[in-house]
Amino acid sequence: MCRLLGYLGSPLQLDQLLYKPERSLVVQSYLPQEMTSGVVNADGLGIGWYHSTQDVNPFTYKNTLPIWNDINLPELSRYVESDCVLAYVRSATPGQALDMGNCQPFRRDRILFIHNGFIERFRQTLYRPIRDRLSDEIYQSIHGTTDSEHIFALLVNEVQRVADASLEKALSQTLIQLKQLAQSYQVNFSANVIISDGHSLVASRYASGSSAPTLYWLRDDPNYPNAVLVASEPLFAGNWHSCPTNSLLVVKEDLEVCINQF
Amino acid sequence: MCRLLGYLGSPLQLDQLLYKPERSLVVQSYLPQEMTSGVVNADGLGIGWYHSTQDVNPFTYKNTLPIWNDINLPELSRYVESDCVLAYVRSATPGQALDMGNCQPFRRDRILFIHNGFIERFRQTLYRPIRDRLSDEIYQSIHGTTDSEHIFALLVNEVQRVADASLEKALSQTLIQLKQLAQSYQVNFSANVIISDGHSLVASRYASGSSAPTLYWLRDDPNYPNAVLVASEPLFAGNWHSCPTNSLLVVKEDLEVCINQF
Amino acid sequence: MCRLLGYLGSPLQLDQLLYKPERSLVVQSYLPQEMTSGVVNADGLGIGWYHSTQDVNPFTYKNTLPIWNDINLPELSRYVESDCVLAYVRSATPGQALDMGNCQPFRRDRILFIHNGFIERFRQTLYRPIRDRLSDEIYQSIHGTTDSEHIFALLVNEVQRVADASLEKALSQTLIQLKQLAQSYQVNFSANVIISDGHSLVASRYASGSSAPTLYWLRDDPNYPNAVLVASEPLFAGNWHSCPTNSLLVVKEDLEVCINQF
Amino acid sequence: MCRLLGYLGSPLQLDQLLYKPERSLVVQSYLPQEMTSGVVNADGLGIGWYHSTQDVNPFTYKNTLPIWNDINLPELSRYVESDCVLAYVRSATPGQALDMGNCQPFRRDRILFIHNGFIERFRQTLYRPIRDRLSDEIYQSIHGTTDSEHIFALLVNEVQRVADASLEKALSQTLIQLKQLAQSYQVNFSANVIISDGHSLVASRYASGSSAPTLYWLRDDPNYPNAVLVASEPLFAGNWHSCPTNSLLVVKEDLEVCINQF
Repeated sequence: MCRLLGYLGSPLQLDQLLYKPERSLVVQSYLPQEMTSGVVNADGLGIGWYHSTQDVNPFTYKNTLPIWNDINLPELSRYVESDCVLAYVRSATPGQALDMGNCQPFRRDRILFIHNGFIERFRQTLYRPIRDRLSDEIYQSIHGTTDSEHIFALLVNEVQRVADASLEKALSQTLIQLKQLAQSYQVNFSANVIISDGHSLVASRYASGSSAPTLYWLRDDPNYPNAVLVASEPLFAGNWHSCPTNSLLVVKEDLEVCINQF
Repeated sequence: MCRLLGYLGSPLQLDQLLYKPERSLVVQSYLPQEMTSGVVNADGLGIGWYHSTQDVNPFTYKNTLPIWNDINLPELSRYVESDCVLAYVRSATPGQALDMGNCQPFRRDRILFIHNGFIERFRQTLYRPIRDRLSDEIYQSIHGTTDSEHIFALLVNEVQRVADASLEKALSQTLIQLKQLAQSYQVNFSANVIISDGHSLVASRYASGSSAPTLYWLRDDPNYPNAVLVASEPLFAGNWHSCPTNSLLVVKEDLEVCINQF
Repeated sequence: MCRLLGYLGSPLQLDQLLYKPERSLVVQSYLPQEMTSGVVNADGLGIGWYHSTQDVNPFTYKNTLPIWNDINLPELSRYVESDCVLAYVRSATPGQALDMGNCQPFRRDRILFIHNGFIERFRQTLYRPIRDRLSDEIYQSIHGTTDSEHIFALLVNEVQRVADASLEKALSQTLIQLKQLAQSYQVNFSANVIISDGHSLVASRYASGSSAPTLYWLRDDPNYPNAVLVASEPLFAGNWHSCPTNSLLVVKEDLEVCINQF
Repeated sequence: MCRLLGYLGSPLQLDQLLYKPERSLVVQSYLPQEMTSGVVNADGLGIGWYHSTQDVNPFTYKNTLPIWNDINLPELSRYVESDCVLAYVRSATPGQALDMGNCQPFRRDRILFIHNGFIERFRQTLYRPIRDRLSDEIYQSIHGTTDSEHIFALLVNEVQRVADASLEKALSQTLIQLKQLAQSYQVNFSANVIISDGHSLVASRYASGSSAPTLYWLRDDPNYPNAVLVASEPLFAGNWHSCPTNSLLVVKEDLEVCINQF
């Protein structure tokens, strides 16, 4: 289990997102409220953001320390302004190393990706079958050992396979593939994912054979006008909506929110 | 708040102490039961132990990661056998850095020291007055910035001041001095301390102006025969005794336990 | 010994400064050319920069790893644009801990500070005398244990003592004080320092009883037009000038460079 | 390039091996003399050792910091006594992460393994072909992403494939396989390896298409009587022998040294 956060909207200084909320990711790291497994999210953190005026690849910042012990993140959060941000605090699945290489967000060109969930007994089940499906180039680009990064690799595979596939379509196909694989190997998994290309956010609340972790979204909060937030847990009291289980949430550049059931 | 552990008795392999108990320091790090402040103890760890056959200075091992993320400690715990061990998991007081220099146990010659508690607004109150009382040599030997290390410095000062002072006497005098200082600066503090010289354990449960953190001890448990354990929280179901508030617990080499009230 | 770098001029992306030069700080970390002691500069790094459009306190980024192992700095360097930057790679004096608290730049309000040099047997000599001269407030604000931070504390003391003191005057007085202290305790020191307030750079090449580390400056290089660079070693072939020993170099907002001998 | 060290002989305290020699691994980390690529070995360290009296799996200790910044290793080295030790300081191949998972020694049951060398453009060449040859169980047991760990996986594959294969035979077959793979993919590699099962040491100095890194051995040095040392560089002045290129060095329990050419 990890705690995810996505933001799309008017440019804001990151500390408004990461430190100011009453139940920020910092609080969620030591005192989460809606974990379906695990107790704390103290196995590192990661932030990804897009430049608000330049058309360049997104930026990431990662650390393996608990977020509350990171002395650089407050500085960075005071400096960076962005209109599209992904962030997470990690609760490592036992057996998956703390290494930086396992720290999200994962990035490929313009795409950022964060995942909360697990594949049951990943190493013994889907680890090799997933890798065997990947193109050489994607196979070689994997730098860690988590189930999360392998789901990301499937997504990149899908993005490359289908020219001009939308993010939404790519994530949807990835989860369908994953479900097929999981069924043939008779394993459960859950995959709450948030991805972005800097212009839109796509998020899934999805599970097969296990309960799906929670996922919420909120639009046009008085403190975050002209913006949509997506989060594992509400960051503050507000008009948060729970995403339905096994659904895909799409936030376009105009901040319209669509929810599609699988 | 931190979680402390002391062991004196028959030599045992450290993993029996650190990993095997149902509510080991590992569990106490993410799910403590009796914290008077703080939520988790994920700001590092430290172990100190004495050689069971050689008359040499004790050994320490420290890490700033959460104990569950330490991949070396299980190895070390499988190798080290000792008859006298101090261990702790840290919950850093806000504002006190994660740095290794702040990581306990502190050591001076044959003495090891761990502390759970705090001095209220330490930097603004007793930081300079304590340092001003120290001999040059002890002043220069301080390597971190915590209240804990400064209480240790007072103790070392006391040990050096009084020739042949017992550990018990030295710790008792240290706490009395600390109380006087605290009163003249009108600040609260708490000082659950465990110290050793390899032959005996001395522990305090002590506070002034605030409630004292919990402290327990147990002797001759079936799984730990010929041994005394002292701990912030019971490590497993057993015949644990709560130390009275403002008391000093002394465990001699014969494992006799004495409790003296202040 | 460390390797220092200061930049004042047209806003530039940090990677132009930190990674692009042929003999960048990264190269200087594993293969420095003009060290007067030490072999490599692999004990961490630090960057400080000012916002190029907002009048806010400067920002810092620090790490205790060798600069070449920092996976966040390339990201940060690709994002940050600044007109005033201080950077350094550290070679820790033996006995001075790797801790983040010892990692420069040090900051106080609008001032950033980096130091290359040493005070001979610092802990046994000037450590306590320097601290004894500090106001309570500055005493309490020291977070590490290095000679560098204590020189910085003297500087802050000087800034606060003299209303409207220029940076130049404050650094000059600091070094004079340090020299007096060093002479009365009969110790050598060296203090190559770069400080800034975001509008000007002031640098010293200074030593007492030992040889001063090298320091260079360069203005209006074709690749860095409208800018002054100050560095321990030239970053690339160019029209670098060596600062004279025991001099103070001042770079004002108009990029005029003044050198004053002590 | 890394710097390797192997010891087999009378039990000794690790600090005799790691810190005492004039050109210890600590010195070799910042000032190596015989590197064929790279400049320093400051990307971490690892130690593996066998219990000198108990028949249990060997122990490892790893760190990603430069060895000179490790404050636990001196403590550990003062405590541990062993008759069979492997140690190394790492110089990470560019592109291979600093992560703990990439830190040697690698271990499988009773076998410890360290490697100095490289496979040319590993990710783009032998990464996938090597993995494809592995049994599921070995495939799943890989925890990092280095060429070194994949050579180790080939070795474990070989050990499991041939019942009662000697270490010598297994390493020899591994290198032959690796050479075949390298030739079919037209890549160069070098593989100086030291392995042990606690009773013997086997080391290779081997390269294909590139020059082999140096490797030395020494027996019955006055300061290390009844012992054989194998090392990338001599640790001190003494009667060191250079291993021939493309040879296998075998040290049996009786400390007899055999050298076999490929």
